[in-house]
Amino acid sequence: MSQQEETGLVDRPARSRRQILAAGTALVGGTFADLVANPARAEPTASTDNTPPNVPRWMREPGADVGSQPYGLPSPFEKGIIRNIPKNGKQYTSSASRTPLQDLDGIITPNGLFYERHHGGIPDIDPAQHRLMIHGLVERPLLLTMDELRRFPTESHIYFLECSGNPGFEVIKQGKTASDLVGLASCCEWTGVRLKTILDEVGLKPDARWVVAEGADAAALTRSVPIEKCLDDALLAFSQNGERLRPQQGYPLRLLLPGFEGNMNVKWLRRLNVVAEPAYSREETSKYTDSMPDGSARQFTFYMEAKSIITRPSGTHSIERGFNEITGLAWSGHGRITGVEVSVDDGSTWKAAQLQEPVLNRAFTRFRYPWTWDGRPTVILSRATDETGYIQPSFADLTKVRGMKSFYHNNAIVPWRIASSGAVSNGYL
Amino acid sequence: MSQQEETGLVDRPARSRRQILAAGTALVGGTFADLVANPARAEPTASTDNTPPNVPRWMREPGADVGSQPYGLPSPFEKGIIRNIPKNGKQYTSSASRTPLQDLDGIITPNGLFYERHHGGIPDIDPAQHRLMIHGLVERPLLLTMDELRRFPTESHIYFLECSGNPGFEVIKQGKTASDLVGLASCCEWTGVRLKTILDEVGLKPDARWVVAEGADAAALTRSVPIEKCLDDALLAFSQNGERLRPQQGYPLRLLLPGFEGNMNVKWLRRLNVVAEPAYSREETSKYTDSMPDGSARQFTFYMEAKSIITRPSGTHSIERGFNEITGLAWSGHGRITGVEVSVDDGSTWKAAQLQEPVLNRAFTRFRYPWTWDGRPTVILSRATDETGYIQPSFADLTKVRGMKSFYHNNAIVPWRIASSGAVSNGYL
Repeated sequence: MSQQEETGLVDRPARSRRQILAAGTALVGGTFADLVANPARAEPTASTDNTPPNVPRWMREPGADVGSQPYGLPSPFEKGIIRNIPKNGKQYTSSASRTPLQDLDGIITPNGLFYERHHGGIPDIDPAQHRLMIHGLVERPLLLTMDELRRFPTESHIYFLECSGNPGFEVIKQGKTASDLVGLASCCEWTGVRLKTILDEVGLKPDARWVVAEGADAAALTRSVPIEKCLDDALLAFSQNGERLRPQQGYPLRLLLPGFEGNMNVKWLRRLNVVAEPAYSREETSKYTDSMPDGSARQFTFYMEAKSIITRPSGTHSIERGFNEITGLAWSGHGRITGVEVSVDDGSTWKAAQLQEPVLNRAFTRFRYPWTWDGRPTVILSRATDETGYIQPSFADLTKVRGMKSFYHNNAIVPWRIASSGAVSNGYL
Repeated sequence: MSQQEETGLVDRPARSRRQILAAGTALVGGTFADLVANPARAEPTASTDNTPPNVPRWMREPGADVGSQPYGLPSPFEKGIIRNIPKNGKQYTSSASRTPLQDLDGIITPNGLFYERHHGGIPDIDPAQHRLMIHGLVERPLLLTMDELRRFPTESHIYFLECSGNPGFEVIKQGKTASDLVGLASCCEWTGVRLKTILDEVGLKPDARWVVAEGADAAALTRSVPIEKCLDDALLAFSQNGERLRPQQGYPLRLLLPGFEGNMNVKWLRRLNVVAEPAYSREETSKYTDSMPDGSARQFTFYMEAKSIITRPSGTHSIERGFNEITGLAWSGHGRITGVEVSVDDGSTWKAAQLQEPVLNRAFTRFRYPWTWDGRPTVILSRATDETGYIQPSFADLTKVRGMKSFYHNNAIVPWRIASSGAVSNGYL
């Protein structure tokens, strides 16, 4: 007996199933009255031979063998879910690719889709040849192999990581998708050795105030980190989501400074020089400073402030009338997210979204808000609050203070415009 | 100036760095007195041309471009960290591959290394053609496309998943690595729609007691699930670690029954038949039942009991005298892990290990225990306790009750033998 015969669904037109849904139980935030989007959708796998109906092709013969992918990959049907790589770039040695946030669920970013930002390309490092040197204002300079580093006590934490230019102040008015706008942010579980453990081992001299971290890439990317952060939660990380760091994220070793702007989390870490004054390196002088309206520059703006974005529905998505779950991500470099508010009327009113547990320190927090769309054009927004009480600003409020000469540290609210057709687009356009 | 010149390390023999470590700060559980394992280790990247010393090859030229991997992969140097696939199997259509637990950190299993267990191979399902049918003792049978299912409210949770035969009662005495022994367990963040939401939508009839779940694989794998679980935390999952399910884990849709034995978490889910009595399918009669010493069989043994394993150091690893962090994983189908004890003297004494936060419901929990090995042969063990107060048994205690005719639900303590050479091996051998 076929499935259709068993269930009596065989003779029902698609319309009657819509009526079933229309009569559905009321859920938080609305009913499923208009849930079914496409009355003309395909019927269950059409039978094209003499096998019973509704037994799809893939049940009629054995599938692929166990272990046919010793290291597994996504389904070929998901080949479009890849890093968002800039088109027509002048070069890609110093460039970025973005995480496709609008296609992802939960808080963990799979390693294959973690965002990238490189200044001299991705080095191909032999971990057996890699060394970490700790020197400068220390009692006992140290040169460690990866095997030696792994002998120290380890920790694991789920932390977000975000590029400080996510997005640039002008870019926010150009991007189409959530990834275009804030896809230079990802979140995973990092494992490593606390930097404090190593600094205790080498012994800091009294005037040790900064640690200059250097990467083993062609750019020798160099950033100065305050000693307070190094003695707090800074991690020498060698793992992400259980496995070794990916080459794009600093294999075999990176600095992890929870909540600090991405480029300070030096990848391919080879050197920690303990000093009294910062290095004033290229990436903390001509780059990664914020030009203010009065011509001055904000420097050493370490923390990524509280931010949120609705990832679904978001730009280039299309929605139907009726129930739509609004969901997105919030995070703050200062600690835990304490609340996310959603507006479905362009900011006139705001209501609390539900935060998915666990809500972790300096990690992505997934929020959800049930919404029934009546089909009228509107704008939907989210704004995050963190444990310091800081509230994510609108772009207008942010630029009142910061002006438009700035590039980094734009944590403004992102509005998504909903057209009467259901098409979703960047509300700044 | 080279790094060596800068630091004064250039003329120090490797031995003096060992002495530095030997003088190191005392840490929890021991000093680093014997930390450095290999005095003959390679010096930092030897210079083979006229470039300055200690500037490795990968700093002398730009690395690979951004986006050179639209979907990223591990470093080629990690090509050995793959699923543990049985060698010389008779066939692989119905077989399993294991997660390489001894090579992983933290609690998240990367999707590419999630364990596999298939009964009819891995189907290649077109999600646009896939349907979920809910029928039987319901008021309004329902046939859902994936797009329709995604319109319902969603949830995300980090849960472990474990095959009930992990390991078989005889296998525990054969395996060499942590993966050989308990690698049919993985943990990730799942996103989906709560099954209760859909059952509320279709309306259960009064005599609805079980839900028979069927997969769209060539085995049409079928299991009966008590209605209580279906109305509790059961999830219709379409995402793992942020991205869509992998084909090996049920793409595009699987049933997720937190804490229940793996095969009940039906992959490639196409049908939920609400019934009054269980189906007594092949996988709950001739398979996945436990033969007891008196000839009877335990049936419907849903829950995976509390278990732990030391993953580092573990079988085939080799350790050095001095400080060694003992770390591993613990989990329970009944809820949270409340404690893990470690013994480093073959069970004579036990001490509490540190549990890494967050400790989540029905998820892997990472534990750590600092240990200084004096070089004498010994056996190291871990045992988990869960929130019900249940304590993981020794294999001797387990088999006193269960005998040796059983195959499934072996959650015995795994001992690792440490030889005087530092070689680590299965303590049952």
